[in-house]
Amino acid sequence: MNKKGILVVVSGFSGAGKGTLMKMLMENYDNYSLSISATTRAPREGEVNGKDYFFVTKEEFQRMINNDELLEYAQYVDNYYGTPRSYVESELEKGKDVILEIEIQGALSIHGRYPDSLLIFVTPPSAKELKRRLINRGTETEENIKKRLNRAAQEAVGVENYDYILINDDLNESLERLHKLIQDQHMRVCHQLDFISDMSKQLRTLE
Amino acid sequence: MNKKGILVVVSGFSGAGKGTLMKMLMENYDNYSLSISATTRAPREGEVNGKDYFFVTKEEFQRMINNDELLEYAQYVDNYYGTPRSYVESELEKGKDVILEIEIQGALSIHGRYPDSLLIFVTPPSAKELKRRLINRGTETEENIKKRLNRAAQEAVGVENYDYILINDDLNESLERLHKLIQDQHMRVCHQLDFISDMSKQLRTLE
Repeated sequence: MNKKGILVVVSGFSGAGKGTLMKMLMENYDNYSLSISATTRAPREGEVNGKDYFFVTKEEFQRMINNDELLEYAQYVDNYYGTPRSYVESELEKGKDVILEIEIQGALSIHGRYPDSLLIFVTPPSAKELKRRLINRGTETEENIKKRLNRAAQEAVGVENYDYILINDDLNESLERLHKLIQDQHMRVCHQLDFISDMSKQLRTLE
Repeated sequence: MNKKGILVVVSGFSGAGKGTLMKMLMENYDNYSLSISATTRAPREGEVNGKDYFFVTKEEFQRMINNDELLEYAQYVDNYYGTPRSYVESELEKGKDVILEIEIQGALSIHGRYPDSLLIFVTPPSAKELKRRLINRGTETEENIKKRLNRAAQEAVGVENYDYILINDDLNESLERLHKLIQDQHMRVCHQLDFISDMSKQLRTLE
């Protein structure tokens, strides 16, 4: 039986609640591992190295690229963000379902490399609700909110490349749906090839 | 919002329990419609026309083929089996999830025509268990059991073309997994294109 974990890529509009959902997923179930990105940007207040991100220099990041130590990487403004390969691969081998919370550019690149990965896009139920959530955070300037909404409009174009859309209306309900959705993937034929091959062998040799 | 139903194709080894599962699915949930096949074979004792099958003559079946009234059809030994199109299409339009219980040949033909259909293959947990179930039916001759197991060995080759494998160990558990699996499909991007397009429009026109 194939016991390898599922590689799950989660993206979504900022304000969709995906950060909260990921936190809840980790706290409520123990079969998940959350991949931590490497970045060249400076830590923000309260961010912890090795927990929120691996904070590295541009030289270190370049070395990781050269050594093929990143599953994907992307540049935003002046900073690089990437997914360290070794953690993801070793957790998958252990049978853990590994969650990558990354942007669309990285998501598509992962999907090219791992066709069996599961791509989920998290969205609020409406654009109005997205705006309301961004305003309610109380941490964003009006200009920033406008920027984020513009960015969302651009991102929406790429949503069609994902496998599933999770419309996050109620957090607890979304958490359960997300968990079930990921667990269902273990039934996908591509994750059951060993079972099929065993079964075929048994059927041919059955006395 | 796209409210169209999901087209679900269920196949499986004979003895996998798929007939029982389909019956339970219909009895326990009301969002499903079971497609009834047309066939040229004679009714067996107890079989009801319009419930188990639509029993038709070879001439009627040929006319249905000519008029493009069948979604798929296949021949087994001397008999034809096919899926009447109009029922399936009208139920999907109503938002019902429509279940086709058909063989692999028909399943692949449906998938070619409806790429968004969901293909599920039901199997017992092992070949030994499959044999045990066939024997326990008490209705099959030893020769027939051998034939069915041989056929299963051939069918196993085609399983890789399905989307999901449902290993039917416990019926109640399998029922729940099957139902959840189908309901999850409503979150697939291909079934949410209207939502994505609405959301994009809203984001671009948000004031």
